Amino acid sequence: MLIENNRLKAKPDMNTVHFGSYFTDYMFTMTYQDGKWQNLQIKPYADISISPANTTIHYGQSVFEGMKAYKRADDEVLLFRPMDHLRRLNNSARILDIPEIDVEKVYEALLELIDIERAWVPKGKGQSLYIRPFIFATDGFLGVNVSKTYEMYIILCPVAAYYAHGFAPVKIMVEDQYTRAVQGGLGEAKTAANYAASLHAGLVAHEKGFDQTLWLDGKGHHYVEEVGSMNIFFKIDDKIFTPRLDGSILNGMTRRTVLQIARDWGYVAEEKTISITDIIKAHEEGKLEEAFGTGTAAVISPVGQLHYKGRDFVINGGKVGPFAQRMFDYITDLQNGTVEDKYHFTCLVPRKND
Amino acid sequence: MLIENNRLKAKPDMNTVHFGSYFTDYMFTMTYQDGKWQNLQIKPYADISISPANTTIHYGQSVFEGMKAYKRADDEVLLFRPMDHLRRLNNSARILDIPEIDVEKVYEALLELIDIERAWVPKGKGQSLYIRPFIFATDGFLGVNVSKTYEMYIILCPVAAYYAHGFAPVKIMVEDQYTRAVQGGLGEAKTAANYAASLHAGLVAHEKGFDQTLWLDGKGHHYVEEVGSMNIFFKIDDKIFTPRLDGSILNGMTRRTVLQIARDWGYVAEEKTISITDIIKAHEEGKLEEAFGTGTAAVISPVGQLHYKGRDFVINGGKVGPFAQRMFDYITDLQNGTVEDKYHFTCLVPRKND
Repeated sequence: MLIENNRLKAKPDMNTVHFGSYFTDYMFTMTYQDGKWQNLQIKPYADISISPANTTIHYGQSVFEGMKAYKRADDEVLLFRPMDHLRRLNNSARILDIPEIDVEKVYEALLELIDIERAWVPKGKGQSLYIRPFIFATDGFLGVNVSKTYEMYIILCPVAAYYAHGFAPVKIMVEDQYTRAVQGGLGEAKTAANYAASLHAGLVAHEKGFDQTLWLDGKGHHYVEEVGSMNIFFKIDDKIFTPRLDGSILNGMTRRTVLQIARDWGYVAEEKTISITDIIKAHEEGKLEEAFGTGTAAVISPVGQLHYKGRDFVINGGKVGPFAQRMFDYITDLQNGTVEDKYHFTCLVPRKND
Repeated sequence: MLIENNRLKAKPDMNTVHFGSYFTDYMFTMTYQDGKWQNLQIKPYADISISPANTTIHYGQSVFEGMKAYKRADDEVLLFRPMDHLRRLNNSARILDIPEIDVEKVYEALLELIDIERAWVPKGKGQSLYIRPFIFATDGFLGVNVSKTYEMYIILCPVAAYYAHGFAPVKIMVEDQYTRAVQGGLGEAKTAANYAASLHAGLVAHEKGFDQTLWLDGKGHHYVEEVGSMNIFFKIDDKIFTPRLDGSILNGMTRRTVLQIARDWGYVAEEKTISITDIIKAHEEGKLEEAFGTGTAAVISPVGQLHYKGRDFVINGGKVGPFAQRMFDYITDLQNGTVEDKYHFTCLVPRKND
């Protein structure tokens, strides 16, 4: 299914490349029409042609995933939980009434694509090849309806270390005005709508000197949901907590990974409804030991400070906590293949095109 | 700014053309880059080229408008509240952090476009030329950020009479599970996210035999918000009510028009918070005289039946009410120029290209 690219690009300088801006030579694509996914191809990375009436531009029927490939010390390439990511893409697709993909077939195509592009997987510490599968509606028709045609793509971009200046905590503004998602909406799906809803609050947080927004529930702004585009964890009185999945929170892959590993390490790790007042109370009682976000881009993003209703709450002296540090080190070791992967999270990309 | 089209299309059969599917020969476009809107053009209608990393496909930063041009008996073309529509486009743009357009300049371009395409404005009863201005982010960059570049288009499609089989009431399912939008979100903007959030509930309503969804508030599903993609009105005890604008409801142009005309006719017409239980109570007391949706596509869409928690509530015997009928007739007369427009809602498109 490969269409050759005769104009290969230079690899970027991994010290200066920006996240998500420099793409590899090939992409995977397939189309949905006449009721089935078809025309699977790996072809040169190139612009896409759409109708001006494209239903995604007008009505937002699209879903995506984000995952990464890592280069092991022996130059083999590892993917982290690729099948789980493709299954989650299908879950997002169901929520948006987009026809599901055959995850086995797409996984095979993904392995072939990464195999072809293995020279693009960077080897430096913290570096990886970011993988962005996405599906979007392609009907050129202005009626508000579920589309009859779709295209799926997988595009790839080498990304620099997330923590170029060391593993550092962020300052977070607790958002009590804007809403990312609400129960009964699309919050659980990785879909454009949730990110569109987050843009303005993100700008406001940045203008006020904060790195990210801590989202509260859309019903009353009492309960903690996510941080920026990551899931959020708290370590309180030696126990680990993260908001339970209630339909408005993304079922994060790193979230699942952290819960599983934390329990393996002997911690109580609970998914529960957590109010912001509970968090403030734990802080005031000296029991809020750590807070951190989890996501594919950062893996772990420690929270050094929460800002809520005009007050600042410094966590662990504004420093990276020992649990967050240990978890970050362990997950990145798993991803890079420097510790044994007893969880079978990683998949080695077979060499076929040598 | 005109680029000639040498391959003009045939006009469609107005008896069979589907809404939003057959576009005219020309479109307006301009681009935003280097901090300003530039490169205004009227050019042949054609597909658009986007990056696979286009931020609208991934993160939904887009807004649109919908308005109509009508052909008067003397063959002159009228637009209905075009400047108000363009100003509302800017309001949506502000909510999505999209740079505002110069409405005066775009209005000029719109007049030129419609003038060129005046032969496409159909003259049959209820027919019109649908006008779809839209703006979308065009950065080819996977970071979740406000885009630095945008494109704006205005595309046109002739549309058949909305009520091909007569002005008829619809059956509506009151939605108490899914949510279109919530306060603190994007509900007031005409943006992709709100339509994406409405797709699945719309499908469910159709499968259950209903025409549309009546949306309740996202916080507790108590308060009436919108119907399908229209605003909703009730006539109770000879007074007119519509939900007040609270940030999660679209500030509809037909909604504004109906409020103004109803007051002019001597009715009390109130924007207020309305619970679904208030509506049911009014129905049980025999005071719910009429209900109808308002929007650019349908103008007025009478509601003949509400379905809520397993019960059916028939309104005005399932027939079009006299107020809805009178309002529909009057607004369509204004739009078609068959009554004097004392409100100055309509604008005549000047002839320049004869």
